[in-house]
Amino acid sequence: MASCDIPCFKLFESDKTLAFLDINPLSRGHALVIPKAHGEKLTDIPDDHLTELLPIAKKLALASGAKDYNILQNNGRLAHQEVDHVHFHMIPKPNKEEGLGIGWPQQKIEMDDLKALCEEIKSKM
Amino acid sequence: MASCDIPCFKLFESDKTLAFLDINPLSRGHALVIPKAHGEKLTDIPDDHLTELLPIAKKLALASGAKDYNILQNNGRLAHQEVDHVHFHMIPKPNKEEGLGIGWPQQKIEMDDLKALCEEIKSKM
Repeated sequence: MASCDIPCFKLFESDKTLAFLDINPLSRGHALVIPKAHGEKLTDIPDDHLTELLPIAKKLALASGAKDYNILQNNGRLAHQEVDHVHFHMIPKPNKEEGLGIGWPQQKIEMDDLKALCEEIKSKM
Repeated sequence: MASCDIPCFKLFESDKTLAFLDINPLSRGHALVIPKAHGEKLTDIPDDHLTELLPIAKKLALASGAKDYNILQNNGRLAHQEVDHVHFHMIPKPNKEEGLGIGWPQQKIEMDDLKALCEEIKSKM
């Protein structure tokens, strides 16, 4: 996924970040932003290589002209990750058919359980 | 969505950023990170309020213990946004049934069209 592999579709490059069009888009303007630092998952990337990614995703959204759009970053096969280098999708959602499809299997959870979980996670932050 | 409305479920707070558990989770540990600066969509948030969000999302992923997880931020009703303040979901994906469901309606696009689109978007970056 180095810039030299996709010269035509590069949209932005800095010392830490690269952005380019997805060659198998879900919609017109579907683009990717990646840190140049290699890491498979978000948790593998140093913080100072993460800070530029959202400002660039924002630029991509603005330049695409999309009104509605999704920012998505998948970690692991179960979570639909297919390329093992962290990448953020900016996917315009022009209508119901094109762009990202989302399934939202909401769970029921007791407030007491949520409170206990909150304490547990907070203790690990 | 101010911190005072969800005191029990707050996981992190700084001058620019707030993180808390989603009270209608898709999976155990489903959490949200938001900029305190108000904006409906990603494109409404100043860059300096975007830089901290991914490092915090990373902290949430680590603290949740999730191996597989999705980072998702929806912009606009068509793109599944329901609360009009920018929020990033960190959604653990423990198995096929729980967590985010993803539909991926890939399109066919000619390389020449992609190249032209690349030039068009690049000119607007």
